[in-house]
Amino acid sequence: MGELSHVARDGTVQMVDVSGKDITQRRAKVKGLLLIQPEHRKAIGSLPKGDALAIAQIAGIQGGKKCSDLIPLCHPIFLSSLNVAIHLTEAGLEIEAIAVTEAQTGVEMEAYAAVVTAGITLIDMLKGISPTLELTRVRLVEKTGGKWDYREPSE
Amino acid sequence: MGELSHVARDGTVQMVDVSGKDITQRRAKVKGLLLIQPEHRKAIGSLPKGDALAIAQIAGIQGGKKCSDLIPLCHPIFLSSLNVAIHLTEAGLEIEAIAVTEAQTGVEMEAYAAVVTAGITLIDMLKGISPTLELTRVRLVEKTGGKWDYREPSE
Amino acid sequence: MGELSHVARDGTVQMVDVSGKDITQRRAKVKGLLLIQPEHRKAIGSLPKGDALAIAQIAGIQGGKKCSDLIPLCHPIFLSSLNVAIHLTEAGLEIEAIAVTEAQTGVEMEAYAAVVTAGITLIDMLKGISPTLELTRVRLVEKTGGKWDYREPSE
Amino acid sequence: MGELSHVARDGTVQMVDVSGKDITQRRAKVKGLLLIQPEHRKAIGSLPKGDALAIAQIAGIQGGKKCSDLIPLCHPIFLSSLNVAIHLTEAGLEIEAIAVTEAQTGVEMEAYAAVVTAGITLIDMLKGISPTLELTRVRLVEKTGGKWDYREPSE
Amino acid sequence: MGELSHVARDGTVQMVDVSGKDITQRRAKVKGLLLIQPEHRKAIGSLPKGDALAIAQIAGIQGGKKCSDLIPLCHPIFLSSLNVAIHLTEAGLEIEAIAVTEAQTGVEMEAYAAVVTAGITLIDMLKGISPTLELTRVRLVEKTGGKWDYREPSE
Amino acid sequence: MGELSHVARDGTVQMVDVSGKDITQRRAKVKGLLLIQPEHRKAIGSLPKGDALAIAQIAGIQGGKKCSDLIPLCHPIFLSSLNVAIHLTEAGLEIEAIAVTEAQTGVEMEAYAAVVTAGITLIDMLKGISPTLELTRVRLVEKTGGKWDYREPSE
Repeated sequence: MGELSHVARDGTVQMVDVSGKDITQRRAKVKGLLLIQPEHRKAIGSLPKGDALAIAQIAGIQGGKKCSDLIPLCHPIFLSSLNVAIHLTEAGLEIEAIAVTEAQTGVEMEAYAAVVTAGITLIDMLKGISPTLELTRVRLVEKTGGKWDYREPSE
Repeated sequence: MGELSHVARDGTVQMVDVSGKDITQRRAKVKGLLLIQPEHRKAIGSLPKGDALAIAQIAGIQGGKKCSDLIPLCHPIFLSSLNVAIHLTEAGLEIEAIAVTEAQTGVEMEAYAAVVTAGITLIDMLKGISPTLELTRVRLVEKTGGKWDYREPSE
Repeated sequence: MGELSHVARDGTVQMVDVSGKDITQRRAKVKGLLLIQPEHRKAIGSLPKGDALAIAQIAGIQGGKKCSDLIPLCHPIFLSSLNVAIHLTEAGLEIEAIAVTEAQTGVEMEAYAAVVTAGITLIDMLKGISPTLELTRVRLVEKTGGKWDYREPSE
Repeated sequence: MGELSHVARDGTVQMVDVSGKDITQRRAKVKGLLLIQPEHRKAIGSLPKGDALAIAQIAGIQGGKKCSDLIPLCHPIFLSSLNVAIHLTEAGLEIEAIAVTEAQTGVEMEAYAAVVTAGITLIDMLKGISPTLELTRVRLVEKTGGKWDYREPSE
Repeated sequence: MGELSHVARDGTVQMVDVSGKDITQRRAKVKGLLLIQPEHRKAIGSLPKGDALAIAQIAGIQGGKKCSDLIPLCHPIFLSSLNVAIHLTEAGLEIEAIAVTEAQTGVEMEAYAAVVTAGITLIDMLKGISPTLELTRVRLVEKTGGKWDYREPSE
Repeated sequence: MGELSHVARDGTVQMVDVSGKDITQRRAKVKGLLLIQPEHRKAIGSLPKGDALAIAQIAGIQGGKKCSDLIPLCHPIFLSSLNVAIHLTEAGLEIEAIAVTEAQTGVEMEAYAAVVTAGITLIDMLKGISPTLELTRVRLVEKTGGKWDYREPSE
């Protein structure tokens, strides 16, 4: 740890060269929370849920697949799977994405891209109810298969 | 206020029909914060800034232009301008996007898409320094030109 | 009627120049049918419908928005609305897309792109049940607002 | 056979996890027919064929490469080849796509995406001649290399 | 003339805000030349021309439509028309793109994007004949409808 | 050498089938030159360089990743790395892209796509200074790992 990804020794940015690295199975889980004020949470409970949450889930998967198009220095990679789940909690809607690949490079960014795309899609559907929605706590909670593993303490 | 965008009376989801609505100038500002733990903030200060922040800024603009491709029920619209600024603050990196259009529909979602794309691009560049980065407080801070105006109290 | 769109007098293909044409409201409805053999129709009835049909509906809308990226000589246009509905009928799943625009050029192709994208998404979800699914009868059923109006006799 | 692809045991939709599956060569052929009324078939015969059919062929290949962007639960995969052929028959224009990959998952959907994109591109070029074109009989005719092989009886 | 587009007074880059500008018809013509060594030019003459040149022409039109996705600070705009022509000359293959719009901002970049995409598509098809192909002289030859008009002296 | 890529024996175009070919490491370097007239070169020297060149560099990388979307008969491939460098020389701005892959097919076209996208992005930023910019000398300078290696004599 401790290195800036994508910055060459001379200070210029670059896409990291992964050729020659082993192909291993890599897995990453990212979570985020769409914070909804208590007075608006009831409206969410009455959403036509199958549909509204399915749309955000699908948008998240599609956004994750667009990862290397969104993030300039990401490698285009094959995905073994990428799934998004959304749950209503006391604070709002919790979004979780799990990405899996067999590749020479990690899959965190795909999971991040999935969570934020699902998040802004939820905002698009709920913004008529409340202008004070807030996408928050978007973070890596678990990662295996690369140079180092990571697990958020509370996970 | 108080309506679910994109949900028809029969409960099915839909893209709202904006035909016949007036074309007005609309403007939206969205902010977000990439929270960086104090012990890693110094490393950011020594980033080859022109380059690293310029990449996230550009990724944000490009992400904002992809808004209707990311969010299923968003209309593809013309953008008069879309800009992203990133500042190092005490808590981390603050991301701000301002989108402007002359259209029949609003431009908040483009600003949201810009902020989250810039945010995950920053994470991609900084993740080697710290796995505990957190994209947080992504929210609308100002909006003018549509059915109702909005300004975050502290703005 | 009677002209080949996109073919210039010298026989080469071209994108039609629509500059100077009036901006009018245009609307097109396209339908298609995913034919499912009687012995497999029951399985469809037990689909987790909200989800499965919502995905195809969303894929259809997203596919319609990609129309000018899919069809080489189509103009990129603004869409006032684009919606997709899917119904279980005696023969299978009926897909219907309605596209609306205020533009100098028509919106049929966007509706076609929506129907076929929804159709192949349904096939992707149902192909494990039956390899003999057939997307059929994809056709324009109604069109208003351009040089000529059209309505399928049975519509 | 007999399972719904992409539906988890709890009824939610998901992208199937293909990690750990063998990489095998997979091949799929999909056909479709653009039905053209007899009185308009002559006009097709006088098309500047090299150009008009080449455009639909190219659009089909490009559409097939966009498959995982069009169909939400499809994996992005490498393609060894993807080709589209279009022939004038008695009933209209027959479209055939053959996709080949060496992957952990099948390649039917890429062939389907190619056929329907070529089909709607043909409609775009011919719609000035006839509004009653119909894309029909889009179906899998052959598939090898996965869990099961398939060949349409008449193929 | 004399200003750097897209650079704000404080030196940061930005997408220019075009809101409030008049909508005028704008037209731009860009040319380029794919230089082919004399000994390989004969092979080009025997190309299945309809097909090979049609593919590059179509790729050019599609590339021009992707302009705002390729060039970070370009506005997404409506195109009234965008056409590409390719001619065999003494020096090689001359590529010409003409883009037309009715917009608040110019259309040169769309024509540039069309020429270079057609150019690299030609290289892709001809690279088996000669590795020394060279895309050269890509330049604006004519532009009307914006703040200033321009015409290359020799045009 | 001596064959037309992508043309089948019967004269129709096709995507080459690479299945069964060995996976080898392949590397390609493409260069181009943005010619700037002497009287305008000074303005470039005073560019907010980090930003302006970083944008073109990033646009180049993103354009290279879109290669198979831009060039109809290119295979979508995994990239081990793709980098772009831009230097101010006596004649203007020299653009260089190096692409690396481990694949069954070459990576020249990705490097070409990167150079031309960086080139037109530079034009977009500099066009306010001079309308007579010219993207020129876009050519392969080095290539290893496929059927034949190549190196430009002066390289």
